[in-house]
Amino acid sequence: MGAVKTKRMPRAVREQQMLDAAVRIFGQRGYMAASMDEIAELAGVSKPLVYLYLNSKEDLFTACIRREASALTEAVRRGVRQGPSADRQLWDGLLAFFTHTARHPDGWSVLHLQARTHGEPFAAEVTAMREEIVAFVTELIAVAARDAHRDPHLPEREVAGLAEALVGAAESLAAWANATPGVTARQAAATLMNFAWAGLGDLMENRPWPVPPVSSADGD
Amino acid sequence: MGAVKTKRMPRAVREQQMLDAAVRIFGQRGYMAASMDEIAELAGVSKPLVYLYLNSKEDLFTACIRREASALTEAVRRGVRQGPSADRQLWDGLLAFFTHTARHPDGWSVLHLQARTHGEPFAAEVTAMREEIVAFVTELIAVAARDAHRDPHLPEREVAGLAEALVGAAESLAAWANATPGVTARQAAATLMNFAWAGLGDLMENRPWPVPPVSSADGD
Repeated sequence: MGAVKTKRMPRAVREQQMLDAAVRIFGQRGYMAASMDEIAELAGVSKPLVYLYLNSKEDLFTACIRREASALTEAVRRGVRQGPSADRQLWDGLLAFFTHTARHPDGWSVLHLQARTHGEPFAAEVTAMREEIVAFVTELIAVAARDAHRDPHLPEREVAGLAEALVGAAESLAAWANATPGVTARQAAATLMNFAWAGLGDLMENRPWPVPPVSSADGD
Repeated sequence: MGAVKTKRMPRAVREQQMLDAAVRIFGQRGYMAASMDEIAELAGVSKPLVYLYLNSKEDLFTACIRREASALTEAVRRGVRQGPSADRQLWDGLLAFFTHTARHPDGWSVLHLQARTHGEPFAAEVTAMREEIVAFVTELIAVAARDAHRDPHLPEREVAGLAEALVGAAESLAAWANATPGVTARQAAATLMNFAWAGLGDLMENRPWPVPPVSSADGD
């Protein structure tokens, strides 16, 4: 509170400091319990300045979600290079993802937990990021399938489902890895490759898991 | 609302009707937009009776989460029989899961979306259910691994990670299947088996995906 001494600093820099502080506090305390006083103090600025720059707690939270979402998608895109085999591309993308979420646990908490547990406008921001990542993964899988078997392509719908499964598995594992002491990004990525790749790999080779016939106990 | 004509009926039956109506309205409108008037009307009872039985909108929502969570875990447990091979058990469990979420899309929306986006007390209810399902899946995978390779067991931590990945993938796919016209429970279960089983299967046979060596571009 009160007048904290602040050196002259470009607005953009100051704003990033506020967002750094806000992501930390939102990620650790949760959205509801986070206080603007604490965020201002951690950022080393006055509370009125936070309001001047970022308007309200809601807007500050939205700005945090947007920044963290674009940093995460950027990290994954940067991690995946053109050229290597499909499994290597997937590994690179997963390693980039788990490395980023491990290095930015508060940012991941904001995206995965906080943004989804405090109502619609925030949840919609995360949904948009998720759709971007799913689209990216869908394209990776579709290209891999095209490369792997020339003739019958994987049906588009199957590829979309696989991408949803992979993204859901990665989200779940990232939360688990961050909550489990000693699990590294490499271990999380290796677990997911063990889980997913040989599965996807067999599928690329046209060796699907043999689905049992419909029985009366089944649903549709 | 006014006095809706209500026949004499045991409290337990009446309460289930209220919960049926509440799950439908919460699932379709969302927690915030759901109105107690609409829930009472759909249940065919007066609003004061809803309050008398279930106390408040918060308590009603919590009761919905609990009922839907235990119906879902029950359906999955019932789906998995002792005896068949590990992949068949997994298939049975996934088919039961996707069949249940397809038949109860509003219940799934309450659990997967609504309960997680409206703050802590509700989110904690779903977390408890999720932990139960993860523990169940962990046990399935651990038993399968024990059956598959006699000597070096899969490390406990790896099994826990695989279970997290599987549950996350299933959650993600269920939401996608319900939102994508024409995707059946069988198709969703088959997609996840294609994605996951051959992967898990290779792992059971001691054929993990070959993790590349650490490079300078990697994280930890």
